[in-house]
Amino acid sequence: MRQAFSQLIVALIIVVGSIPVSGDEGMWLYNDPPHQLLKDRYGFEPTQAWLEHVQRSSVRFNSGGSGSFVSADGLIITNHHVGADALQKFSDARHDYLRDGFHARSRAEEKRCLDLELNVLCSIEDVTERVNAAVIPDVNAEQAFAARRAVMAEIEKKSLEKTGLRSDVVTLYEGGQYQLYRYKKYTDVRLVFAPEQQIAFFGGDPDNFEYPRFDLDFCLFRAYENGKPARIENYLRWSPNGVGDGELVFVSGNPGNTSRQLIVAELEYMRDRYFPYVLQRLYNLEVTLLAYSTRSDENARRAKDLLFGVQNSRKAREGMFAGLLDPKLMKQKQTAEQQLRAAIAQDPNVKEALLSFSRIADAQQVVERNAMQYRLLEDAHGFNSTLFGIARTILRAVEEKPKPNGQRLREFRDSNLESLEFQLFSEEPLYEDFEQIKLADSLVWLVEQLGYSNPLVHRVLAGKSPRDRAAELILGTKLKDVAVRKKLYAGTVAGVEAAHDPMIELARLIDPEARAVRRIIETQDEIKRQAHARITQARFAIDKTGLYPDATFTLRLAFGTVKGYGENGRAIPFQTTFAGLYERAAVHHYKPPFDLPQCWIAKKNKIKLSTPLNFVSTADIIGGNSGSPVVNRQGEFVGIIFDGNIQSLVLNFIYTDVQARATSVNSQAIVEALRKVYNAGELADELVGKKHL
Amino acid sequence: MRQAFSQLIVALIIVVGSIPVSGDEGMWLYNDPPHQLLKDRYGFEPTQAWLEHVQRSSVRFNSGGSGSFVSADGLIITNHHVGADALQKFSDARHDYLRDGFHARSRAEEKRCLDLELNVLCSIEDVTERVNAAVIPDVNAEQAFAARRAVMAEIEKKSLEKTGLRSDVVTLYEGGQYQLYRYKKYTDVRLVFAPEQQIAFFGGDPDNFEYPRFDLDFCLFRAYENGKPARIENYLRWSPNGVGDGELVFVSGNPGNTSRQLIVAELEYMRDRYFPYVLQRLYNLEVTLLAYSTRSDENARRAKDLLFGVQNSRKAREGMFAGLLDPKLMKQKQTAEQQLRAAIAQDPNVKEALLSFSRIADAQQVVERNAMQYRLLEDAHGFNSTLFGIARTILRAVEEKPKPNGQRLREFRDSNLESLEFQLFSEEPLYEDFEQIKLADSLVWLVEQLGYSNPLVHRVLAGKSPRDRAAELILGTKLKDVAVRKKLYAGTVAGVEAAHDPMIELARLIDPEARAVRRIIETQDEIKRQAHARITQARFAIDKTGLYPDATFTLRLAFGTVKGYGENGRAIPFQTTFAGLYERAAVHHYKPPFDLPQCWIAKKNKIKLSTPLNFVSTADIIGGNSGSPVVNRQGEFVGIIFDGNIQSLVLNFIYTDVQARATSVNSQAIVEALRKVYNAGELADELVGKKHL
Repeated sequence: MRQAFSQLIVALIIVVGSIPVSGDEGMWLYNDPPHQLLKDRYGFEPTQAWLEHVQRSSVRFNSGGSGSFVSADGLIITNHHVGADALQKFSDARHDYLRDGFHARSRAEEKRCLDLELNVLCSIEDVTERVNAAVIPDVNAEQAFAARRAVMAEIEKKSLEKTGLRSDVVTLYEGGQYQLYRYKKYTDVRLVFAPEQQIAFFGGDPDNFEYPRFDLDFCLFRAYENGKPARIENYLRWSPNGVGDGELVFVSGNPGNTSRQLIVAELEYMRDRYFPYVLQRLYNLEVTLLAYSTRSDENARRAKDLLFGVQNSRKAREGMFAGLLDPKLMKQKQTAEQQLRAAIAQDPNVKEALLSFSRIADAQQVVERNAMQYRLLEDAHGFNSTLFGIARTILRAVEEKPKPNGQRLREFRDSNLESLEFQLFSEEPLYEDFEQIKLADSLVWLVEQLGYSNPLVHRVLAGKSPRDRAAELILGTKLKDVAVRKKLYAGTVAGVEAAHDPMIELARLIDPEARAVRRIIETQDEIKRQAHARITQARFAIDKTGLYPDATFTLRLAFGTVKGYGENGRAIPFQTTFAGLYERAAVHHYKPPFDLPQCWIAKKNKIKLSTPLNFVSTADIIGGNSGSPVVNRQGEFVGIIFDGNIQSLVLNFIYTDVQARATSVNSQAIVEALRKVYNAGELADELVGKKHL
Repeated sequence: MRQAFSQLIVALIIVVGSIPVSGDEGMWLYNDPPHQLLKDRYGFEPTQAWLEHVQRSSVRFNSGGSGSFVSADGLIITNHHVGADALQKFSDARHDYLRDGFHARSRAEEKRCLDLELNVLCSIEDVTERVNAAVIPDVNAEQAFAARRAVMAEIEKKSLEKTGLRSDVVTLYEGGQYQLYRYKKYTDVRLVFAPEQQIAFFGGDPDNFEYPRFDLDFCLFRAYENGKPARIENYLRWSPNGVGDGELVFVSGNPGNTSRQLIVAELEYMRDRYFPYVLQRLYNLEVTLLAYSTRSDENARRAKDLLFGVQNSRKAREGMFAGLLDPKLMKQKQTAEQQLRAAIAQDPNVKEALLSFSRIADAQQVVERNAMQYRLLEDAHGFNSTLFGIARTILRAVEEKPKPNGQRLREFRDSNLESLEFQLFSEEPLYEDFEQIKLADSLVWLVEQLGYSNPLVHRVLAGKSPRDRAAELILGTKLKDVAVRKKLYAGTVAGVEAAHDPMIELARLIDPEARAVRRIIETQDEIKRQAHARITQARFAIDKTGLYPDATFTLRLAFGTVKGYGENGRAIPFQTTFAGLYERAAVHHYKPPFDLPQCWIAKKNKIKLSTPLNFVSTADIIGGNSGSPVVNRQGEFVGIIFDGNIQSLVLNFIYTDVQARATSVNSQAIVEALRKVYNAGELADELVGKKHL
């Protein structure tokens, strides 16, 4: 459940608070934790030290996921499927670390990742007033957006200069609050250990988002500083006891995005336009990648991580879409909105916020008319090649960098350039055949969506078939060479023009339209932001209890109870064991995706089969939470989030704990596997804090 | 390349003659064979006896494919993938004949198919004048269509009464000709032998439509009459020698449909609307079926034949769509149309046919506006369950049967009822879980295409989610019981109403809209038919040489040369051998879909590895030709068509022999496998005509 394919939701969807907190609901801000709720419900009062320790032990994976420090020497645990991006990138035709796993027997063998950036949240500062003060009343939405972008870029730049920390202004409550998040950044990250994908993702696509589950979905990295393992003050102590039924647990991670506070008009847009579109795109891409993958083992290896991401997204989005197609869920949302409107109408201080609902609906209609163009051009769904992304970044970088910081497209603000360059100059391997397949497929998609006779499509294809055009572009571009990228990026507009690189020329060809539609969407987002801000203010004024913002891929604290649930008259127990893993493999005759790596068959009699493997809890999570540590009242590491069940997919829109559950790997399973299956006792010792001399 | 998912093309696409014959082009009518061409090009002059013998040896599989008689005792050979429908239907959880194959060691063990109807073409009679005479000039298109439908039904009925033979009036040249085809029908058809699917479809989806190829894609049925093997006068003698490089061969089979004579306006419609639509439907369905299949072996078995059909259609349509997206192909079609128009303009006798082009284009626009409604409701893309099809047939049957023969929906004409009932009362197994998955998926598709707020969608869903509604319908309908079907079908409108079967009620709910849109499309088809008829007449008047009608899933004769081709600078040889099969499996480490059945590994050293396995020729074929016999000048069986290469997919629009090739199994490979791998010497003997005493 890694965050993927989600920039579209982030870009197009803006949200509003309307439903009161229920059960173990909430993706809480670290600077506004649910003290009263925890006290009332669980008699638990986390101290400031407890909160700070867990916060600083938590790690964000910028490739899309979460993790945590688990040793003083910089050891970090996350999911295998979060680490997969890094594993894929340093594999090649002879070394398939994603499939076969990896074990560094010594520090010297730890493998440096090509472009993995990790962030640790150090501080939060409220900058709402500074941001809003910069937006003069009565300017139009486009000017307001420009002013807001400028002040945010300046705040970030000054913070970076002052502290040396990565500094991001985060928009919370859809514009109700702006907070400056400062992160310590790690870019020298090395792989320490990964099991085989088949044990991390046992059951494959059929078992994904299902429960009971039997997956050892973890891997270990180590943060380095100055060429040495980072010395870490805040890391989670390992619990030798895992979790018990009914226990209170906490999840500290980075949920990607949720749409709980959308007004009904926005949900209808998602149901009627967004999900049908995105699912068709995913079905098409999945078939294209499967067809490519079945041709050879090497093709399968090249496509593996992307294919996983596409299948994972598809299954998640099918579940979300099913939620919106369920009249019961929609009825709940409609009722909640009516209640909120009624409450606002009764309060003369906030009454004018009622107008915001129609403003959002109106803006949504403009978004709807432009969404397709936005997705195809600005989100580049019509140009699905890593090389296109590189080309566009270079094209725009030389145009944007000379502008004043506050006037640039947001990704080119000074405070972000280091991270952007880290990605742009990645040595990740690119395969010409694979890039051609992806690009040709997406050019056909472009034709299908805009129509063959569309003038822009005509210019993009340049008189060739999509397949021929893709071949020409991929074979012709020089951007496969990182040195060429560096030279062009460091140069000028004229220098990039003179290079006549065909992929950059393609990016240039569509750039006026891409920038124009981005401007439209950004302007409508500003209108919605202002409207949502008023609704949020109204909600705060009426009753602040239980309010937390929708997810924004920033650090949140959730809590929940370890417990099973009922399904079709069956009681699903809260945890599974290694014994269950072997049983499920046997039922399916060890056939993929229910096969086991050889070492798991060979070591079966060494493993304590009653060791708990996976467990579920009512904690409130969503994609992006993958790899989040699960901690107990003592702040100890008891497990790691890796999935939610099918019933949890509607958590995108509404919290429920009837059947929805977050799924984790038990800390005990990890240590047992390291010791008994992988002869990695030294790592198990480092996790449990046993000193080596 | 079985004909599948093609009713839509058949229903919506009407075609026109415009490009002269080239190379080995042509799907020739048996009553208008290319005598001059064969004589000029190959010095071959088939006698009437030769033609009649091959015609009467050819068999149409009404499940969608071709075959031929190959023994005096009614033995019929076709492709494994044509027989797959029958194999799937009498398999169950314990017997997977589709996967594992079948071998009747004696006549008594031959397994009767549940609903397989075979047709052998006995005679052709031109009825163009009678059909056209019934359509009074100056009536509107709707009246013209009704009159034409009525006269065709009457001709068919009288023919059936007189001859006892299945009688179909076939529309050729899109209305240029009407011919009465009379068929001998076989409905007691028994499976004799099938190899494992893995050897019949070695290489799976990646190798489908590719070459070189290594597939033993055949199976054997036997026609029975009065409980005994049918005595067959016309059957093909088996060639012991297969084919040689450069040899002239003939293909006698039932190409499903082609679109070669479409005017450019119609091709643009296919490119801009039809292919984008149908490919998205197929991608979605493929992913749904794959997700269902990976859950268990039994799921995979239940979905296998449909999944093959969907993947096969998807790959074929991707290839066709790629053709239309290739500006070179479109340019050729535009040039040819301009030349035809110019020729028509110069001939005062046919000049008025020029008007037909704009009439077709105008009708096409009406079709385009109604096509989505037609696909979803009348083609039932929104109601993808076998049980829905059964429900609708019963609903309409009790309404249509009391009407005069000529006024009924065409499928309910008297002459067709026997075949219709044969299908309707099939005991094919239906699985509630599988029907639910398919129906729920298609209801979501309906929502996506028509929109959630569409009033018809609203009534169809009846306040439930698509998944809940599908469950309610599938679990609630009584039509799983064939006795219930028979009782309702034999009854009255009131009787069907009183049954309150939920699936029939669903069919009733959408029937007014479905019938209405069908009427619109049929009326536009009539307009196009009349216009195309005039263009055809003009073409006949200008130069009749080399004209043959587009494919109509009726018997045609094609011819071609056995020869290889060049690709990416490589010379692809005309044939492959068993040795190549083993090599390809080894290269892929015997991993699916490149694995081999156990018996093929065990018997490797018994097989003559140099035996030719597959070969290619320039014969002009398309989907529906699967299973067609390939015969030599002597009329001997030398092989069986089972596929075309990727480059042949554009044959839907235009013939080419630069790289496009038809792919066949060599007759020698079949006998070698029967003797050496399957211990089926008695069948090999029957094929080669060796008498057993």
